[in-house]
Amino acid sequence: MHFSSSEFHNRLKKTKASMIKNNIEVLIITDPSNMNYLTGYDGWSFYVPQGVIISLDYDEPIWFGRMQDSKGAKVTTFLRKENILGYPEDLIQSPPLHPYDYLVDFLNSKNWANKNIGVEMDSYYYSAECHARLLNQCPNASFHNAYLLINWIRLIKSDNEIKYMKDASILTQIGMQRAYDSIKPGVRQNQVSGNIQQSLLSGNKDIGGEYSGLTLILASGISASASHLTPTDKKFKQNEGTIIELSGVKNRYHCPLSRTVYIGNPDSKTQDTLKITNEGIESAIEKTKPGNTAHDVAVAFWDVLTKYGLEKDSRCGYPIGIGYPPDWGEHTLSIRKNDMTVLQPNTTFHLMAGMWMDTWGLELSESIRVTENGCELFCNFSRKLYLI
Amino acid sequence: MHFSSSEFHNRLKKTKASMIKNNIEVLIITDPSNMNYLTGYDGWSFYVPQGVIISLDYDEPIWFGRMQDSKGAKVTTFLRKENILGYPEDLIQSPPLHPYDYLVDFLNSKNWANKNIGVEMDSYYYSAECHARLLNQCPNASFHNAYLLINWIRLIKSDNEIKYMKDASILTQIGMQRAYDSIKPGVRQNQVSGNIQQSLLSGNKDIGGEYSGLTLILASGISASASHLTPTDKKFKQNEGTIIELSGVKNRYHCPLSRTVYIGNPDSKTQDTLKITNEGIESAIEKTKPGNTAHDVAVAFWDVLTKYGLEKDSRCGYPIGIGYPPDWGEHTLSIRKNDMTVLQPNTTFHLMAGMWMDTWGLELSESIRVTENGCELFCNFSRKLYLI
Repeated sequence: MHFSSSEFHNRLKKTKASMIKNNIEVLIITDPSNMNYLTGYDGWSFYVPQGVIISLDYDEPIWFGRMQDSKGAKVTTFLRKENILGYPEDLIQSPPLHPYDYLVDFLNSKNWANKNIGVEMDSYYYSAECHARLLNQCPNASFHNAYLLINWIRLIKSDNEIKYMKDASILTQIGMQRAYDSIKPGVRQNQVSGNIQQSLLSGNKDIGGEYSGLTLILASGISASASHLTPTDKKFKQNEGTIIELSGVKNRYHCPLSRTVYIGNPDSKTQDTLKITNEGIESAIEKTKPGNTAHDVAVAFWDVLTKYGLEKDSRCGYPIGIGYPPDWGEHTLSIRKNDMTVLQPNTTFHLMAGMWMDTWGLELSESIRVTENGCELFCNFSRKLYLI
Repeated sequence: MHFSSSEFHNRLKKTKASMIKNNIEVLIITDPSNMNYLTGYDGWSFYVPQGVIISLDYDEPIWFGRMQDSKGAKVTTFLRKENILGYPEDLIQSPPLHPYDYLVDFLNSKNWANKNIGVEMDSYYYSAECHARLLNQCPNASFHNAYLLINWIRLIKSDNEIKYMKDASILTQIGMQRAYDSIKPGVRQNQVSGNIQQSLLSGNKDIGGEYSGLTLILASGISASASHLTPTDKKFKQNEGTIIELSGVKNRYHCPLSRTVYIGNPDSKTQDTLKITNEGIESAIEKTKPGNTAHDVAVAFWDVLTKYGLEKDSRCGYPIGIGYPPDWGEHTLSIRKNDMTVLQPNTTFHLMAGMWMDTWGLELSESIRVTENGCELFCNFSRKLYLI
């Protein structure tokens, strides 16, 4: 286990307190990051229905999933054997059968199917079908939306969590440096992405990494005008900018970073936009301290953009920590105007300035921890436009 | 575009025919693989709500997604500009607002909100919340479950699709060979996974690859008793088996392969189980031909296991093609008893024998294409237990 029993116990305690506050007796968690947070479970099995059940009247979380993955739960969680449920294989991808029929049977066996049940309505892998099965088969239950209930508990990191994010930041920087060293005119994008992934995973002599919640974003020229295109067979060309967004991962904790490189002599709009964006980032970092809000940070960033007449519609940050595909964001606060979430020590977020223009783009970001008096950057990596 | 206009047109035609058959007037597709199949869209943006709308009374599919990702739709799809809808940023992760409110407005604007609307009830990224928004805000619509409607159309591949899968198979074999060459006692798992990813992505002098729908599975010793654990800082040890499952990816098409390696002298149970599993695979391959059913292939496989008194609960295969996280399986046929899906030329599947035992495991698989008279393997890679 990557955390002590007492840390897991503390997470459960906070969860139960939030359940009571929200009038939830039984909570069904399907977001893989939340499952990991509550039990340590770590497996790429979220492509089939699975989850973690927390009941106010029961001491431990209960993991449920496909029988063949229940062995993974035994290896990676702290749960007692009786709290790991494997449903039979014939429920896998054979409609009209469905794994949630098994879940309903289990809820009934515990007399939980008539309770106030919390479900993560808008979380990954809680499909419309999963919800419909519960609704139809638990007519005496009252369903409550517990979307983000666990995510909000995750907002403030423990020192152990920060430690893993710092480990991840080492991998992040090795990966970004490898990108800088690999990009050359005539080289295929996926030759570079192969090198980057090798660095992110192989790491250094002390630590290596894991797959990330969001894949490596790398796009050049007009493709850099979009936010989420990925490397292909295309070759790097003279006089094109390339955006890179990547993250090292340690024990599922992320530390993302974005940079922009340019082959040749960048035009003035690229240089100017990067300079303004960087000034915005610096201004936002200055406002990142306990007691200030996400709004304050956003205002600091956008004030700089406005000063120079630059527009950006999308938010410029989101919280980070545990991540599984398809995301490494935590979906709670956003760095945007009118988000009045108050920053506290060990709030961690990715201050992410994606400037996606009509036919080109640039990215610049920092992963940040709020400290007792201000903040610190996880990475120490120049924000200058990198010229090749 | 990786496919001709006429191939996309043909896919749309089949889709509309299936819609008519299922009494669906407007179809909302959220599975990223299905979105790609219908429009070519390729971006890692499925972590926010997005989809493709097909209406019987409209000529082209309509893409909707986050504004900043609509530029990616312009770059990667064949759609006319007016058929790419970007919803505003303030709907992103700021409940109670939700992107599906925008979708409802659009459906109303086209007079489609009172139609027979098909939705993929159990597909990835169609959350309970998405469905609830549609249900609540389109009281005059009649909703139909269109789960797997597109997936079933994808079952039989075109020659172009087969070509990309063959490209992917080249990457797959380079990746597996790199695994064989990298695993050594004392080496960290993630040093090996870094090398494998480099090979899968960098490819050879002609082609490189892309991120895969399911990540690299690599697990040793007791972790190999579970089906979906992933590489960590753990070091390879003498007298341990390691399962490896990976896939090269070309233009989102996959060709997965599983093998088992052993450091040292394998015990007889590992050797015997692999030999029996291989005999089962050979028997299943023999039964793979047009006219036979998935059931026939499964019976051939399990008959061998039964002959030797070996048990395996999980299915031994699933269809493959386009994939996005969290999966590279297509969720239609399964190679298991009583699946009476009839094999046809250019049905493609991953014949996957995962033998996950109490404290150890092994894996052996082939990606297979049904031909006019029988079948062919995509890879030409020895199925022997690889000894290090």
